[in-house]
Parts: sequence; structure tokens; C-alpha cells
Amino acid sequence: MTDLEFFFDPKSIAIIGASDTPKFGYTTTKYLLNSEFKTYPVHLYKPEIMGHKAYKNINDIPDDIELAIILVPNESTLQAIKDCRDKGVKGIIIESAGFAETGVEKYTNIQNQIVEIAKESKIRMIGPNCIGLTNFSNQFTSTEVNFDNTLKGNVAIIAQSGILGNAMVDWASDAKVGFSKVITLGNKIDVDEVDLLDYLNNDFETKVITLYLEGTNRGKELQQILKQMKKPVLIVKNGRSESGSNAVKSHTSSIAGNDKIYEALIRQHPSAFRLDDFYELFNVAHVFSTQPLPKGKNVAVITGSGSLGIKACDEIEKQGLSLVQLKEETIEKIKTVLPSWVSIKGTIDLGPSQSTTFESSLKAVLSDENVHSLLYIFCVPRGPLQAMNLPVSPYFRLMKKLSNEYNKPCVWVVFGSHWVFNYVMESAKKVKYEIPVMKRTDHAIKAFKLMYEYGQFLDNKKI
Amino acid sequence: MTDLEFFFDPKSIAIIGASDTPKFGYTTTKYLLNSEFKTYPVHLYKPEIMGHKAYKNINDIPDDIELAIILVPNESTLQAIKDCRDKGVKGIIIESAGFAETGVEKYTNIQNQIVEIAKESKIRMIGPNCIGLTNFSNQFTSTEVNFDNTLKGNVAIIAQSGILGNAMVDWASDAKVGFSKVITLGNKIDVDEVDLLDYLNNDFETKVITLYLEGTNRGKELQQILKQMKKPVLIVKNGRSESGSNAVKSHTSSIAGNDKIYEALIRQHPSAFRLDDFYELFNVAHVFSTQPLPKGKNVAVITGSGSLGIKACDEIEKQGLSLVQLKEETIEKIKTVLPSWVSIKGTIDLGPSQSTTFESSLKAVLSDENVHSLLYIFCVPRGPLQAMNLPVSPYFRLMKKLSNEYNKPCVWVVFGSHWVFNYVMESAKKVKYEIPVMKRTDHAIKAFKLMYEYGQFLDNKKI
Repeated sequence: MTDLEFFFDPKSIAIIGASDTPKFGYTTTKYLLNSEFKTYPVHLYKPEIMGHKAYKNINDIPDDIELAIILVPNESTLQAIKDCRDKGVKGIIIESAGFAETGVEKYTNIQNQIVEIAKESKIRMIGPNCIGLTNFSNQFTSTEVNFDNTLKGNVAIIAQSGILGNAMVDWASDAKVGFSKVITLGNKIDVDEVDLLDYLNNDFETKVITLYLEGTNRGKELQQILKQMKKPVLIVKNGRSESGSNAVKSHTSSIAGNDKIYEALIRQHPSAFRLDDFYELFNVAHVFSTQPLPKGKNVAVITGSGSLGIKACDEIEKQGLSLVQLKEETIEKIKTVLPSWVSIKGTIDLGPSQSTTFESSLKAVLSDENVHSLLYIFCVPRGPLQAMNLPVSPYFRLMKKLSNEYNKPCVWVVFGSHWVFNYVMESAKKVKYEIPVMKRTDHAIKAFKLMYEYGQFLDNKKI
Repeated sequence: MTDLEFFFDPKSIAIIGASDTPKFGYTTTKYLLNSEFKTYPVHLYKPEIMGHKAYKNINDIPDDIELAIILVPNESTLQAIKDCRDKGVKGIIIESAGFAETGVEKYTNIQNQIVEIAKESKIRMIGPNCIGLTNFSNQFTSTEVNFDNTLKGNVAIIAQSGILGNAMVDWASDAKVGFSKVITLGNKIDVDEVDLLDYLNNDFETKVITLYLEGTNRGKELQQILKQMKKPVLIVKNGRSESGSNAVKSHTSSIAGNDKIYEALIRQHPSAFRLDDFYELFNVAHVFSTQPLPKGKNVAVITGSGSLGIKACDEIEKQGLSLVQLKEETIEKIKTVLPSWVSIKGTIDLGPSQSTTFESSLKAVLSDENVHSLLYIFCVPRGPLQAMNLPVSPYFRLMKKLSNEYNKPCVWVVFGSHWVFNYVMESAKKVKYEIPVMKRTDHAIKAFKLMYEYGQFLDNKKI
């Protein structure tokens, strides 16, 4: 198993290029110096940073250093690395950019020299051209994360891109996806997705791994580690097109490679799944991380809008799943509580009656043996919601209870303004966001499909 | 030209089944009785509704009535319609549900009798099983709309579904899509999409028409009117799958029909475009309604994240457009302001430097003759945005100015939390939301593609 623990829980840290003025690295410096992590600022000129004694050189620090975070400009990075080698650090996070990804020979050469040092010294290095990592468990971060705004959970992110890692966490803070660890890799001169998949495979805080890949330099090892994975790995791989592939090169100096090879590589491993974009990646990860695996292909749809129900049917069929055929007794049970004009032949369209009919309908549907997963589409607009002040926490409590009881995955989709989404989210809090709420029907159904496939794979392994 | 003016600007209104208790129809009653529209409540038992004298029957009202809104239960609807006929109204909006869409013979028969009355009397009827319409110009509505929250503009919606019409407007209020008129059609016993396309084609407040269709009963006439359209018509047609098609029947009693026929019908008309879902529908409509048509296929991408730039490249190629090859002089101009580590070979990836490099880059890019449209991807997360308080209004002002000057469409994509989206939107207000802001790169690029095609069609017509 790959030892990278000093990256995630460093006993001592040096920030080389620590900054006390608002620029890149400022918030990292501020956060770590004010945290419980033993942190030493290193700065060429300043004797003090934010009230902490600063050292001219990492070698001046009168303490062992496990982890160095390098924030200095590209041309000063090589010397900083050499100093770290002399100090005997275990790991280095190089956040500085401006190396091979520029395509400029001079900067590519600097990167090559760093690679040599990594090989010789066995010091593990993350980056350059990244923002390092965050551990949501002990709240260590080499970048900036508002831990009050984000949720601790069991989804890990491995992202090749720097800025995107932060933007992803920011987006997911609305969706209430809970994270274990987030790692950005940049140009991957040493630590790469193979190392991290291996590490996270044994990380008991991680249940689902999301991976954003621009290209790999170790195809064979990636194949090997995917074969060994005990957890689902959800992958977005960009650079399918020619211009996209060129853009990859100038972004993280990776070779995007032939998309078909990646497609085949992912398909070949039943615990790896390819997703289309970042929104889909995290919505699907959220369902994987909180819901039981569906035991079959039948999806039940309860909706407040027939139109959105129809859209869901199209999507269910597109994904090779089936709209459930409810048992006669289930339909009879639902009929007793619904007005005569409510339609329950396909999707269960509660229309504006849901405040009085939701509970009985949900009970009847989830107890039906034909049902393997449930999609609930909520679309009461802001106006009536404000007027009625419809309480939806009981919906969540019931859904969570029945989902546990019958061991069936449930997803709640909201169609409407963000105000409505937040209104619903406030109630989802009551079940610790363990019923995923999202804006996209197609993502919910994609999750059911992939989770069904994953369940089939696990079942076959057992036999 | 179809005369439907009395639906959109009625001189006098009767609400049959007016409600002064919080249930379906309550907010409509409240809104209209408190508006400047001359409105009479009709109620079987109550002598007064919200301080207004109520009438037992529409025929008791001592005034001519142009428009009746029917809110009574399905079994009372037929009598209400007969009363309206006797009164000599011009139009009826039947919001009541529970007719042919139930599949129950009894209710289907009631609907059939209403159809007969419509045919005989020539009274125009919208519905049943709908929520009528909204005119954003004079603020007439037969449903509930918060006019403070929504924007007046030039996008019209024709939606077959009731509830969805409201939910769409609610969603679009975040996206700041400006609407002219929204009409929901329900079971379409009389007024349908053909009538409304004809009407909106001559409505000078409408520039772009969005249409949500479950099925049409007048294929030939739909074809005819699409041929005559002087405006782009953006269409979502659901019910592609078998279960979806069945669901259509029980939703608005339409026949979804063979999807290939609809696909061919839409493709055949160069002013009609098929979109995949509601989010795409309105994002694309927003670009159509506010931006000039691109004169070519070359898209320039300025981004704060290389990864999102790569994703954009893939999408550009997928849509048959091209990532622009900037002129050498443009690249030279940009290089002078960018740090050495910024990549400008493909997409222009400003990274964290955008606060100082955006202006010059945007000027250089939009003045380049090779560029036909511009996509800007903003992805600064909440944390640094709060710390820096980065002012983005100048970005919008400049973009709007240059977009006008060079006559090129621009779209701003935000990747991150809704907080960031709102932060950006606050500034978009300064240019009256005439630079569309959206969360989806793919929708922006789809818009460029369809608008390019539409421009080609208009050019060919001129020749």
C-alpha cells in the first residue's frame, strides 16, 4: 500500500513562499498558521509572517519537517526543492505553475530537473501546477476550504486540475455531497492517480472515489490498480476532441491520448464508470455514497408534474432500465387516497395534491416488491411554497425510514428556482443529507443504472 | 392571424369557482381581484369573496364578460361552460383537471361534450388541465406569478403542461431569462400550439418562442405554421420512449406519436430547433433573445480553469464548431499582459490572474476577425471571491460594449456554487442581463451552433 499519510496528516509543515498579503497562497498561509498543525513560514526577506517567526530557508527551521508546501514562482522552485531535499522532508506539494505545461523549453527543463530529484531522493511530490490537497477528517488543507460550508463525508476527489478542485468543492457544497479527501495533481511529476487510487482504496473514510483525468502516464499500472479496487471509481476524462486534446497538453502537460483507449480501459473494469461532466460526476457519487444498491432495473417515479415524469420515462428507457409496473394491490392502495383525476398508470403524478397524498403513495410504492429504486420529482414553485409553507421534512424522514426498511435507493429531484432547491435542502438536513437532492433527473437515473451494474458485479464476485 | 387578444388583455373577467381559502385558485383570485383588471368572482354559495360581491352564476353579472376562468371541479365544469356560452364570453380558460387524461370513460365524455360546445359556439377555449397564461407586458395572469421576481423580456413559452409552466418561470427567474408571454395548454380541446405560434409570430413583444410539446393533433397545420415563422422556435418534445409515450397519454391525453416523425418535422424547418431538456431550452433561448447571431463557426474561450476549457473544446467539436485559431498579433497582444506561465495556445486560460489580465485579453480576442463568438468561463470559488471582493461589473460592461461594437455573441458561464452564480448575476444586472450567465458550457455552445445555423438560413433567404 502506498504510504502518503504525511500528505494528509503532516506532523510538521513548512510553507516556502508564505504570504501575508492577499495573493496566491495568502489564505493557505493564514489558515495553517492559525491551525493546530505545526507550521513554519519560510520567506526570503520577512522576519515575521502573521505573528510567526519566518525563516529565510527551510534548513534554518529548528525542527524536523515532514511536509513542505512550495508557493514560490516557477524560477525559484528548483532551489526550494533542493533545500527541501537537504532538510530531509518526506513530501512536497508544489503549487507553483509555469513548467512543462507552458511548452517553453526553459521551464520544461526545470521540471525535468525536479523529476530527477524526486527519483533520486524518494521524496514524494505532488504537483507542480496544482493546489495540493484537503483532508476533511482532520481539516488539514494546503489550499482554501471553508469547512463550515462543506460537508464531511465519504466521497474522495482526485483532480488533475488545480483551480477546478476548489470550484468542485464549492459547487458540491450546495449539493451537500460529503467529502473525505480532495487531491489535485497538476503536472504529476511524481504522485499520480495510480498512487492515490491505491491509497484511497485502503482509506476507511472513503467509500466512493471520483477521478478527473486529463491523461495518464502509467496506463498499465492504472489498469492494474483499477482491477484491485474495492470501491466504485467514477471518472471524467476530458480531451476527447482534437482541440481539447491540445488544450490538455498546455494545461497539465499530459498526453490526452486516444479517447477510445480510455473508454475501453474504463469499460473493462466493472468498478470503474465513465461520467460525462462534473455535475454528473458528483450527483452520481452522492447517490453511490448514501444509498443502497438497487436490486433490479425497475424505477418508480412519483412526480408533481406529468411532463417531468415523461422526461424521466424517456431517460429510464435510454439507460436500459424500466419504469416499474406496479402491482395491482399497490395501485388500489394509492387510488384510495388520490383524487379521481390523478394519474397512476405509469409515473405517479400527484399534481398539486401531494401535500395530502405523498405519504400513502410513497409507502405503497416502496413496499411494492416490483420496485427497485425510487425517484421523486418535486416541482412546487416558490410562490405556492411560500404561501402554503409546505413542510417537507416529514417527507424526508419517511423516505429515509422506508429506504432503510426496504433497502431501496431513493433520490429527490427538484425542478425550479434555487430558492426552492434550498427550501428542500433545509429539510434534507434533518436526514443528514442521506437522501440525495439534485436538480437533474437524468443524473439520478444514471446513478440507479451504474449502481445496479455495480451491484451485479459484486454479486457475481461472491458466487 | 389568429385573434386571441382577449386572452392576453381581457377587458372583463369572471372567475368561476373563485376561492378565498388557500387552495388551487386562491392566489389567482386574490391577484386578479386586487389588480386593475375588471374581475368578477363567481361562487355558488358565498355572497362575497375578498370584499368583492360574488355572483352565483356568470349570467348574474351586470356587465359583459370577455374572459372566463374556470376553477371548479371536473364534474361541475360542463355546466360552467354552458353558462359561459349563454353569457356570450369570447374566451374560456379551463384550469380544472380530470378529463380525458384520466382514461376514465365518464370524464372523457365530459371533455367530448365541451369540445362540441367549443366547435358550435366558436368560443375559444384554453385547457382543460392547465393553468392558463401570463402576459408579462400588462401583468395579466390566470395563474400565479411573482412579477417582482421575474423579468419582462422577449421569450415566449408555450407549454403543454400546467404546473411545469410555473416551475419553468420559477427556474428562469434565477437565470434572468426575460419573458413576454407564457401559455400552458393542457389537454388542448381548442387552442393549441398551432394557434399560438401563429399569434406569437405577429406579437411584437416576442422575439424567440419556446415550445414544450407532448404531441400534436394537427401535424399538417403545425408544419404549415412552422414554415411561416419569422422567429426562431425552440422545441422540447418528450415521450421518445414507450413508457414516456404512455405517460403522455395519461398526462394530457395527447398521442406522443413516433418520435422520428417529430424529429423529421422539426429538422425540416430551419427556424425550428429541437432541444434536449428544459434547462437547455431556456439557456439557449436566453442567448437567442439577447445576443447577435454569430457570423461563423469560430468560438473563442477565455477561462479561469484549463480543465473547463478542455471540456469546452470537446463540446465545440461535438457541435461541429471550431475552437478559434487566434491571429498572431492577437496572441502577441495578450502575451504582453500575461504572466509567463499562462497558456494561450488554445483556450485562453487566465488562471488566477484574471483580475489583472481579463480586460486586455477580452479586447484583443473580440477585435480578432477570426473570432465569431466568445465563451467566458468564470470559476473563482466563493472563498477567494469573498476575500478579494473581485468586482465583476466592469467585466460585464466591457463585454457588452465590445459585443455591440463587433456584433459578436458572448456568454458567461459560471462553475461553482449558487452563491458565486448570484455574485456574478448581481453584476450582470448592470447590463440588464443582456450578457447571458449560465451554469452550463454545453448549453452556451449549443446556442452558438443553433444561432449560427439560423443566421445562415436568414442570409440564404435574403439572396
